[in-house]
Amino acid sequence: MIILKLGGSVITKKEAEKPLIDHDNLNRISDEIAESSFDKLIIVHGAGSFGHPSAKKYEIGSPITDEEDFARKKLGFCITQSWVKKLNTLVCDSLRKKGVLAVSVQPSSFIITKNKRIHSCNLDLINKYLELGFVPVIYGDVVPDLDKSIKICVLSGDQIINYLGENLKPTRVILGSDVDGIYTKNPKKYEDAKLLNTVTSCDDLVAEGSLNVDVTGGMNGKLTELIELAQLGVESEIINAGKENFVKRALNHEKGIGTLIKKK
Amino acid sequence: MIILKLGGSVITKKEAEKPLIDHDNLNRISDEIAESSFDKLIIVHGAGSFGHPSAKKYEIGSPITDEEDFARKKLGFCITQSWVKKLNTLVCDSLRKKGVLAVSVQPSSFIITKNKRIHSCNLDLINKYLELGFVPVIYGDVVPDLDKSIKICVLSGDQIINYLGENLKPTRVILGSDVDGIYTKNPKKYEDAKLLNTVTSCDDLVAEGSLNVDVTGGMNGKLTELIELAQLGVESEIINAGKENFVKRALNHEKGIGTLIKKK
Repeated sequence: MIILKLGGSVITKKEAEKPLIDHDNLNRISDEIAESSFDKLIIVHGAGSFGHPSAKKYEIGSPITDEEDFARKKLGFCITQSWVKKLNTLVCDSLRKKGVLAVSVQPSSFIITKNKRIHSCNLDLINKYLELGFVPVIYGDVVPDLDKSIKICVLSGDQIINYLGENLKPTRVILGSDVDGIYTKNPKKYEDAKLLNTVTSCDDLVAEGSLNVDVTGGMNGKLTELIELAQLGVESEIINAGKENFVKRALNHEKGIGTLIKKK
Repeated sequence: MIILKLGGSVITKKEAEKPLIDHDNLNRISDEIAESSFDKLIIVHGAGSFGHPSAKKYEIGSPITDEEDFARKKLGFCITQSWVKKLNTLVCDSLRKKGVLAVSVQPSSFIITKNKRIHSCNLDLINKYLELGFVPVIYGDVVPDLDKSIKICVLSGDQIINYLGENLKPTRVILGSDVDGIYTKNPKKYEDAKLLNTVTSCDDLVAEGSLNVDVTGGMNGKLTELIELAQLGVESEIINAGKENFVKRALNHEKGIGTLIKKK
């Protein structure tokens, strides 16, 4: 089983203020997935410009101050849920039209968090879809939270990846990002930033002189989760899904085209 | 708690060969719901022309003959799931724009059937949404089935109504249809068909001389389920949601504007 993440920065115009799909990337990646050989595949996609603007505007997941604030946040929940669902529909339709049996799985229909971490999440249906030969497509969404101070929160695709990785023990996790992998410094700022082929612990980054690891796209938190996952025996690789055939090559078992995160 | 069904024949152009929304009805009914007073409300909608054409074309739920047939049916599953999800997005957006905090709940993300009847369905999330003051909007969909001869099937909004009715014990179930209620005969065929104010058992229909009760829109099976529900203490009423203010009147606790199905 392979879990493939399609970052919101790859399939949407992430910096857009309004939801905007990146049709070129989505079409090309759908083709690449359709042309790959895999036994079982789960796709997890981010929300990008379909989720972030409204989640931010309505401050979903921040403490509720009063009834009025809660009412506003609930409206924001409904709006955000609708937008990320629309993105998911576009992704599933694109994949299906290329021949991938993509089935939508909506987090806000079966996941509850507690303090923003997944608390209940029954994976029976995802396992059933895999057994039947479908490709479940799950995504960053908004969900109810058991913490009374927030009540609702944003559930990132990254946390879903981590949860699925821990519980389904895939042979591989591939993270399609808009950068080549993990750098010693932010490559968009520093010319001498070096791409790391392998990361086995946070110490690797320290050794490279990047204690304040300034990687792009909030990859710091992501990386910590992936290192944890590697300790459980689940190897992952961050690749640049914006580059032609990288997703296809990774799905076809090629390793080392990005940064591998593996057990020491 | 009230459960409101919006029939596919009301919110879509049901006889259309392609998915076609009935914007007038959907807008009007959304207004009526927004203007009603309710404590807790669950909305269940049918699939109408968004689900039936592809479910029929791909014969989802009929026995699988061979691998090729299964592959074709799986494609049909993906296509049908996508269309009914699009309808659900339209319904949720319409409701939200009128001020109803509509949250989409996708059956194919948490329900598995066995021989076409709901087998596993965790209602925690629906209860959580109700507790938080949202209006969960669930709908007729396609789902995996544990029966090895069919593997996938269509789950009707009616069966969802029945399941929610049994398990959540609402004070009332309102079924918004495109007919006025239960008739002694098919009113579209027979001029002397009489509308029944109350039905307490199938005997009522026999007494009215309609043993072969020929009601419209496959209401025969529906009625049997509703009579069963009534025996469990859950009263329901079939109303004409195509008529102005009927949904609003029913939500505002008016009874007797259609056919009441109650305990003997």
